[in-house]
Amino acid sequence: MPGVTPAFTTIRLDIADQIATITLDRPDKLNAFNAAMLADLIAAFDATDADDGVRAVIVTGAGRGFCAGADLSGGAATFDYDASGGWNGAESPVRADGSVDYAHPAVRDGGGLLSLRIFASKKPVIGAINGAAVGVGATMTLPMDFRLASDAARFGFVFARRGIVPEACSSWFLPRLVGIGQALEYCYSGAVFDAAEALRGGLVRSVHAPDDLLPAARALALRLTAEGAPVSIALMRKMLYAGLGAPHPMDAHKIESRAIWARGASADAKEGVTAFLEKRAAVFPDSVADAWDTFAPWFDKPEYR
Amino acid sequence: MPGVTPAFTTIRLDIADQIATITLDRPDKLNAFNAAMLADLIAAFDATDADDGVRAVIVTGAGRGFCAGADLSGGAATFDYDASGGWNGAESPVRADGSVDYAHPAVRDGGGLLSLRIFASKKPVIGAINGAAVGVGATMTLPMDFRLASDAARFGFVFARRGIVPEACSSWFLPRLVGIGQALEYCYSGAVFDAAEALRGGLVRSVHAPDDLLPAARALALRLTAEGAPVSIALMRKMLYAGLGAPHPMDAHKIESRAIWARGASADAKEGVTAFLEKRAAVFPDSVADAWDTFAPWFDKPEYR
Amino acid sequence: MPGVTPAFTTIRLDIADQIATITLDRPDKLNAFNAAMLADLIAAFDATDADDGVRAVIVTGAGRGFCAGADLSGGAATFDYDASGGWNGAESPVRADGSVDYAHPAVRDGGGLLSLRIFASKKPVIGAINGAAVGVGATMTLPMDFRLASDAARFGFVFARRGIVPEACSSWFLPRLVGIGQALEYCYSGAVFDAAEALRGGLVRSVHAPDDLLPAARALALRLTAEGAPVSIALMRKMLYAGLGAPHPMDAHKIESRAIWARGASADAKEGVTAFLEKRAAVFPDSVADAWDTFAPWFDKPEYR
Repeated sequence: MPGVTPAFTTIRLDIADQIATITLDRPDKLNAFNAAMLADLIAAFDATDADDGVRAVIVTGAGRGFCAGADLSGGAATFDYDASGGWNGAESPVRADGSVDYAHPAVRDGGGLLSLRIFASKKPVIGAINGAAVGVGATMTLPMDFRLASDAARFGFVFARRGIVPEACSSWFLPRLVGIGQALEYCYSGAVFDAAEALRGGLVRSVHAPDDLLPAARALALRLTAEGAPVSIALMRKMLYAGLGAPHPMDAHKIESRAIWARGASADAKEGVTAFLEKRAAVFPDSVADAWDTFAPWFDKPEYR
Repeated sequence: MPGVTPAFTTIRLDIADQIATITLDRPDKLNAFNAAMLADLIAAFDATDADDGVRAVIVTGAGRGFCAGADLSGGAATFDYDASGGWNGAESPVRADGSVDYAHPAVRDGGGLLSLRIFASKKPVIGAINGAAVGVGATMTLPMDFRLASDAARFGFVFARRGIVPEACSSWFLPRLVGIGQALEYCYSGAVFDAAEALRGGLVRSVHAPDDLLPAARALALRLTAEGAPVSIALMRKMLYAGLGAPHPMDAHKIESRAIWARGASADAKEGVTAFLEKRAAVFPDSVADAWDTFAPWFDKPEYR
Repeated sequence: MPGVTPAFTTIRLDIADQIATITLDRPDKLNAFNAAMLADLIAAFDATDADDGVRAVIVTGAGRGFCAGADLSGGAATFDYDASGGWNGAESPVRADGSVDYAHPAVRDGGGLLSLRIFASKKPVIGAINGAAVGVGATMTLPMDFRLASDAARFGFVFARRGIVPEACSSWFLPRLVGIGQALEYCYSGAVFDAAEALRGGLVRSVHAPDDLLPAARALALRLTAEGAPVSIALMRKMLYAGLGAPHPMDAHKIESRAIWARGASADAKEGVTAFLEKRAAVFPDSVADAWDTFAPWFDKPEYR
């Protein structure tokens, strides 16, 4: 729905040069994460996916922080979701006898809902981490394809220091991104560390002077999407993450066979091959927003239980 | 079947010093991949697996290219497999109403059939990448255990620029070999890059002067197979790749327990321990070609559906 | 059961400064692994898990070796488990017709039983590898979170040279720790290599002078457990390894949602958030030994079949 911009209260969404920039925008709170921000971010990714005018998405923070983590203004009960009504306000999963129905749909980590939404993005996602990224502020960046950091950035997987545990699907992403040893070291200690250490550990792709961060993120977004077919890029994003988790190459072969068959017969492929043979730039006709439903069934979408 | 060499039209197969060298041999086409080459390569790996005189396999290209990718001489319809009859010429998976039966066995990516065959090799496989490795020319090297590159090599995961998607099980291999971020960067951009960049990204093991490439590949093959029992090497190859994908260490424990039990009672193990205690080189009696059927059932072989 | 120390014959267990040090203690045999050591090590990890006074576990070797691998004093029949009665002395899995029932519970790799026990540890585990770590002496270190090596350490995945195959769940751990290419290279060749090469290959975290090894391991253990809640650390260990193997982020989301819900309502979380807001060190009240049963059901425990 190009042109239809949701009304946001905790973020900004700006589109220029076919790049959407989502800015976490509670600078007086160091952009701390809350339920409103979760809803805004999910709506923002819905909007960028539906807009063929968007080729890539950048996520950054307003002010001096990226995201300081969960808003702790609720004090000691911040993470007591039954007491606070849970992330989605549905009926309580706590049974009459006090036990918890953990399969209940109210037992959903909010950071995880965001990470699953970013995971499902049809556009490449770049984190431009301008300042402190702590707790869910760190873990929400893991399903982004690339993390670029300002040298003012700080990172902290501080969960153990608060008596809780990592979330936002970080137990899936983090050991794959930095190795299990580095992931455990970040999480056991809960220490806050700087951009140089994040670069050494493989957590970020590159480190930049503060003023160079957004230009670098935009340059990367433009370079990565300049010549590829948008539908190909959308599909590849799903395929490579699916392949990263799949137990056997046959799982990849099934998806790739379907995707090659379908895209091989597409107008995009005819244009891509013809343009190559004619030594000219391709102009791909197919729409991500329109084409998606035809290949979505190839991917398993596991349910929450 | 030592001595029985299949008749090839698109490749050469040479065996010397217990090393098989498969040379992609359509130099006037930069060794572009087609259906005949797929059949030849599968037959070649069948031959090397069946020949106890082969300890390792090297794959390289004739002339100045390694493999320039799919043969595009079919023009715009190159990847339109229904129009061209598909990879295997079976009945069409397109139904009367125009919809596609994606579970149909005709919907099989040809590069994936090759990758699955290399994945199943009982011998270590070394890619000696002498020149351009683009498209399926790049992805077919991913199930090879080691990629050595000449400094004349070039790599390109160019699928998005042609309006198609990665194949040859690359969505399983590539993110595991170079990390998900690097894999996405290669695939989003579709750029062609040189051997030095491939080395930095972890795609290749080492880079060599053109004249040193095959000698280096042969030296590696000899070094890696000089002292190990052939059946152990064949089994380890399957075990480590299976372990790379398996969800839980228990999956590995099941296979290892069976393999240790069976091989521990073998003539190879008795010779291996005895030779070690006698401080002499072992001479292992067991045959890969003969022994395989007894342990194949331990591994799940997922079916295409 | 703090204070109740099992009687060991092949190892020592010392607890100081909330760190348990397990010392493989057959120095005249270079701490070679046998059935008694397997039983002792499993009992030792049972003891450290049950003792809230233990925050981390270090494993090292007495004398000049770490662990020279399986005790080969049985000669050629060392790995012939049916001939030797198997690891657990249960009834034979060999049927009357000579075929083997590989699903029989007697067909269990002993190194794998140890690795699965270390994998299940509720405390961080650090390998302090002081000398030769060969065969199961190398593979038993892989489920440890961090491998620190003395520059006198040597490593060898020598299985192929003995006519057997890797075990101790190494086919799951090794390719994830060092990449599939490096893992295959170690295992194909079966070569013994030094600490510097292990560091280059990513097998060890750091290399130390012999006298600095245990102090470095202790300093790491103290640093990693100084500020985190013990129950959080125990859970994170299970979560990150589970996430490393899980096929889809949704698998992580299910576990994280349950863990965040349960730990968010805990006394630990209330103390953690309050201490942070009051800018003081937290004192976490919850017990790993007591709390475990409430979240164990979240994790699948696959059975051996």
